[in-house]
Amino acid sequence: MASNVNETNNANLTKPIRCIVKLGGAAITCKNELEKINEENLGIVSSQLRQTMVSSENFVSMDWSRIPGTSEIACNVDSFGDQLRFDASKFVIVHGAGSFGHFQASKSGVHKGGMDRPLVKAGFVATRISVTTLNLEIVRALARAGIPSIGMSPFSCGWSTSGRNIASADLPAVTKAIESGFIPVLHGDAVLDDLQGCTILSGDVIIRHLAAHLKPEYVVFLTDVFGVYDRPPTEPDAVLLKEIAVREDGSWSVMKPTLQGMNKQVEITVAAHDTTGGMVTKIAEAAMIAKLGIDVYIVKAATSHSLKALSGELRGNVPDDWLGTVIRFTR
Amino acid sequence: MASNVNETNNANLTKPIRCIVKLGGAAITCKNELEKINEENLGIVSSQLRQTMVSSENFVSMDWSRIPGTSEIACNVDSFGDQLRFDASKFVIVHGAGSFGHFQASKSGVHKGGMDRPLVKAGFVATRISVTTLNLEIVRALARAGIPSIGMSPFSCGWSTSGRNIASADLPAVTKAIESGFIPVLHGDAVLDDLQGCTILSGDVIIRHLAAHLKPEYVVFLTDVFGVYDRPPTEPDAVLLKEIAVREDGSWSVMKPTLQGMNKQVEITVAAHDTTGGMVTKIAEAAMIAKLGIDVYIVKAATSHSLKALSGELRGNVPDDWLGTVIRFTR
Repeated sequence: MASNVNETNNANLTKPIRCIVKLGGAAITCKNELEKINEENLGIVSSQLRQTMVSSENFVSMDWSRIPGTSEIACNVDSFGDQLRFDASKFVIVHGAGSFGHFQASKSGVHKGGMDRPLVKAGFVATRISVTTLNLEIVRALARAGIPSIGMSPFSCGWSTSGRNIASADLPAVTKAIESGFIPVLHGDAVLDDLQGCTILSGDVIIRHLAAHLKPEYVVFLTDVFGVYDRPPTEPDAVLLKEIAVREDGSWSVMKPTLQGMNKQVEITVAAHDTTGGMVTKIAEAAMIAKLGIDVYIVKAATSHSLKALSGELRGNVPDDWLGTVIRFTR
Repeated sequence: MASNVNETNNANLTKPIRCIVKLGGAAITCKNELEKINEENLGIVSSQLRQTMVSSENFVSMDWSRIPGTSEIACNVDSFGDQLRFDASKFVIVHGAGSFGHFQASKSGVHKGGMDRPLVKAGFVATRISVTTLNLEIVRALARAGIPSIGMSPFSCGWSTSGRNIASADLPAVTKAIESGFIPVLHGDAVLDDLQGCTILSGDVIIRHLAAHLKPEYVVFLTDVFGVYDRPPTEPDAVLLKEIAVREDGSWSVMKPTLQGMNKQVEITVAAHDTTGGMVTKIAEAAMIAKLGIDVYIVKAATSHSLKALSGELRGNVPDDWLGTVIRFTR
């Protein structure tokens, strides 16, 4: 893969993608309460994304939905002068499921396949209802912040797997939406699998696939902790790993900070209900993206640190007071 | 096209599609109240669809969403014995927008194109948020009635137009979902247009395209009146046209009832806010489907008449007391 590192961007795109952003499920939902969005975080995240995508300070909501409890539409059509342009830079957003979908998937075993079983088929339907509910609310929040967001649900956009690896994905639909000036919003989803019938395709795997084909300038993972730690971040002595270098063979090591007696093996906790694997998957996926020569930032959502990561200003130099984890390719 | 009338069904499908159903926007939403679903009708329609798709009387909800106002999930996993099979016959459902989407589309002029205008781009985003909100609630209602429904949003499934005619459509994604035992649920949508930038692709045009390629045994349009009338059905002397014959040249004539002094030209009303054209489009689209040798039934949703149409029993013989309009090909 190393020979691909400096390849030009996908020929189907007239301009390269600037950034792929993962909205971690834990950052935008209340992970311990079923199907509940963290509205405050989602609002700040949406606002930060607009600031980094659109240079202008002016924005108008693109969510013209009926205001709950009224018969009115929140629509300010008169604000749309032809002056107000949306020359948004090219972003792709992918979100996780958090407290949406996991219950339905794990209860039915959708990730293990076996679509001929009624429970699995029903769980597939129930999982998709849950994750598309979240997707719609995220698209709505982004639109409300002035971002021309477009939901693209992987299952219905032709994404499928074979033995849990991606077998097909309708990338032209994604690039066409980007070329038309929209911000595609994908998500972890239940999909068909050629070998086991069905499975769960995680947002992290989707991001790796998109990164490999769209070659963004950088990738940002927004999460609910400051980055990757040497042990579970709830432990008092946990140390934030600020820079991880990934080598050509896929192995990785901590460059900053230089710690005495640090565990060589970074301890990882995986929430029991996380059917797609937690931080283990995240680091492995991030390392594979970094191997393509694309910087990856893992950072706490809705903070000044996430705004810096999203803006791309860390690509030149990471300030000492920045909190987060940079994962970079090194020769 | 006449030579195609008796052609075999699409080779990609192991079994032919039984029926394509249009859920008319007027039948499942409150057309005079913005973004409001007609829950009662939608519930009856969902139940009638399950009765005609699944032979068994037993069913379990496949909507395991959090119950509003509680922190509980409505999920009855224990009811899923391996005995409970979903050998649903192959249906495709397409719904209109009703009081969803029309406001956003007409306010911004999405149907007229011009995506470089900020108002049109914002309207495109707003329209899709509104129609996908409706789609999700219909998928949820169908799943609650025990139907393995899968939302497939045309824009994100690769449907696009050229000069408002369909230019591309990801039919393999639809047939793959059907082959996997799911019921795809598509809808009228804002889509990209090669010539004018964007437009509205109506549910009726989607149905014609699906009918031409999937060759269902019959097509049912569920609407809010008993069928097609010789004049606006609100007029006291309006007569229900029970049978319309379509000839090879696309012209059509009323076979039943035989009326003295009937208007040759059937009067049609089009609601002012219906950006995709009302009954004019519907009859024209229905006639084009009938020309393929596929019977079309236009019938009032959530009635004993709609249940008969959905079941397919009208294909042999239409009883005299059945209320609705049959549109058939005649040589």
